[in-house]
Amino acid sequence: MLNFDFTRPIAKELNLVEAKLTENVDSKLSLLNEASNHLIKAGGKRMRPAFALLSAKFFKDDLQEIIPLAVALELVHMATLVHDDVIDNSQTRRGRDTVNKTWGNRMSIYSGNYIFARSLSLIAAYERSDVIEVMADASTKICEGEIIQMLSCYNVELGLKNYLRRIERKTALLISLSCQLGAMLCNNASKNDINALRLYGYYLGMAFQITDDILDFTADEKVLGKPAGSDIRQGVITLPVLYALKNDKHNKELANLIRSPELCVSAAERIIDIIVNSGGIEYAYNVTARFVYKAQRQLEPLPDVAIKSTLLYMTDFIQERAF
Amino acid sequence: MLNFDFTRPIAKELNLVEAKLTENVDSKLSLLNEASNHLIKAGGKRMRPAFALLSAKFFKDDLQEIIPLAVALELVHMATLVHDDVIDNSQTRRGRDTVNKTWGNRMSIYSGNYIFARSLSLIAAYERSDVIEVMADASTKICEGEIIQMLSCYNVELGLKNYLRRIERKTALLISLSCQLGAMLCNNASKNDINALRLYGYYLGMAFQITDDILDFTADEKVLGKPAGSDIRQGVITLPVLYALKNDKHNKELANLIRSPELCVSAAERIIDIIVNSGGIEYAYNVTARFVYKAQRQLEPLPDVAIKSTLLYMTDFIQERAF
Repeated sequence: MLNFDFTRPIAKELNLVEAKLTENVDSKLSLLNEASNHLIKAGGKRMRPAFALLSAKFFKDDLQEIIPLAVALELVHMATLVHDDVIDNSQTRRGRDTVNKTWGNRMSIYSGNYIFARSLSLIAAYERSDVIEVMADASTKICEGEIIQMLSCYNVELGLKNYLRRIERKTALLISLSCQLGAMLCNNASKNDINALRLYGYYLGMAFQITDDILDFTADEKVLGKPAGSDIRQGVITLPVLYALKNDKHNKELANLIRSPELCVSAAERIIDIIVNSGGIEYAYNVTARFVYKAQRQLEPLPDVAIKSTLLYMTDFIQERAF
Repeated sequence: MLNFDFTRPIAKELNLVEAKLTENVDSKLSLLNEASNHLIKAGGKRMRPAFALLSAKFFKDDLQEIIPLAVALELVHMATLVHDDVIDNSQTRRGRDTVNKTWGNRMSIYSGNYIFARSLSLIAAYERSDVIEVMADASTKICEGEIIQMLSCYNVELGLKNYLRRIERKTALLISLSCQLGAMLCNNASKNDINALRLYGYYLGMAFQITDDILDFTADEKVLGKPAGSDIRQGVITLPVLYALKNDKHNKELANLIRSPELCVSAAERIIDIIVNSGGIEYAYNVTARFVYKAQRQLEPLPDVAIKSTLLYMTDFIQERAF
C-alpha cells in the first residue's frame, strides 16, 4: 500500500465529525445509545465524510458548514451496514461483534432506521431541497441495489452488467453523493465542478468496490475484519468469479459449486482455489485501473488548488490497496 | 359503530392516492414490485392520507397538490408495518399473509427501507425544507417509539407515562403529522390553524390507539385481521392491562403471568379473562373519551367550513369504534 495519509488536509474536521457522530445518535434510550455507539466505535475509514470534506475544500477553507453533511453521510452508511448484518446474519464486522450479535435482530433493524432518520434531520437542517432530492434519490437506488444483490446470489447466469449495477448501488453511489454534496454546499462551485466531483466519486467508488472484492480473495481475516472468502460463501458473485466462470477450464465445476448454497460453504476452499488461479484477480485489477483512470480524468477541469493532488493520490491509493 | 363515511368529502382524492401508491413503489425489480403491491393491496384505512386531505380541505378545494404528501404518509406507515412484521414475526396482517411470511425477512427489511426512501422523494419534491424537517423529526421519534415498545414488553413495573409515550410515537405522531402537513401545504393556513390541526391529530391519534388496544381484547379475529389478544401474547402492556395490574384483586397473579414470555402465550386465556373482568376496558374507554374531547376542542378556532363537521364526527367515530 502507498504510504500516504489522504485525510491529512482535513484531519481537524474529521475529528469534529467523530465527536458529532456520537452527539447525533444521542437518544434518551440508553440501549439505543449503546448500540449506536458500538457501531461508531467499531470504526471504519470515514471515507464518505472525508470525500465530502475534500470535495468542499476545492472551494473554501473553512469547512465548518460541511461537518453536518459529513456526519449524515457516515450515518447513512452505518444504517446500511447494520441492516446488512441482519440480512447476512453476520457475527463480526471490522473485527468486532455486530449489533445483531450483541443485541439481536430487532434492535438492529430499529437502530438502523433510527440512525437513518437522524441523518435525515441533519440534511434537512440545510434547508436545501436540491440536497434532499439528491439524497432521497440515492437512498432509493441504494435500497434497490441491496435487493439486486440478494436476488443475484448463487446465480451464475448473470454477467458483468449485473455486477456493475450491484457495486454501483452498493458503494459507488454513496461515495459519488459525498463528493457531489460536498461541492453543492459551496456557493462558488459551478455546475460543471459539481458534476466533475460527482463523477470522480462514482468512478472511484466503482474502483474501490472492485478492490474490496479482490481483497475478499487475497487478504487475510486480520486485514478484512471478517473471514476471507465471505462473499463467495454467501453466494455473492464478484468480478474475479465472473472471469473464472467465463474463462477458466474448470468453469463448469465452478458453476455447479456456486449454484448450491451448501457447496458455497462446504467447498469454499476449492471455489477460491479455482478463482485465484483463473487469472480473475488480475482481470479485476485491470478493470479497477480503468475506473481509476476515469476518476482521474474528471479532476482535470477542477480548480488547481492543493487539494487536487490529494484526490489524485487517492485514486492511486485505491488501485494499490488490492496488492 | 357509527354509520358515517368520513372519507366522502375526499373520496375522489383518495382514489387518486390509491392509484399513485402503486405508481410510486414501481421499481424495475419485479420481486420488489410484488412485495410492495402485496402491501398496498392488503388495504388499510388510508387514515393518514385522509387526515392530510381533510386538513387541507379547510383551506382550499383543489387538493391536487396534497396527493403526493398523502401518498408519502401512507408509504411511511407501510414501511413501519413491514418492519414491525419482521420484528414480531407476524404471519398475517389485515387478514392476509405478511411480506415476511411470503418473501422472508430479508426482503421485508429491504422493501421497508425502499418504501421509506420513496416517500422521502415525494416529500423532497415539494422543495419545502420546513416540511422535510418536521418529517425527519417525526421519523426519529417513531423509531425511538418502536424501541421503547420493544424494551417495555413483559415489564409490569412501567406505568401510564411509559404507555402514553409508546402510543404517542406508535400512532399519534404520524396522524398528527398528517394533519399538520396537510395544513402546512396551504398558503392561507395560519400558524394557529396549523398548530390546532397538529394537536387535533395528536389527541385523535392517542384516542385511536387506545381504542385499538381495547379492540385487541374485545373484538374477534375477523374484525382485527389478526388473532385477538395478539398484544398481550407478545407481552405488550396496554391501558386495560395497566389498570388491571394496579386495581384488580388478581393483580399479583396477573403480574407473574405477564412477566413470563412463555406464560403470556400459554396462559393467554387466563390473562385476558382477568383483564376483561377488571374494569380495565371501561377505564381505557374513559381515557379515550378524554382524548376525544381534547381533539374536539382543537377544532374550535378553525375556519367554519363544511369539513369541520367531518373532523368532529371523526372523533365520535373513533370513540364509538371500541364498542
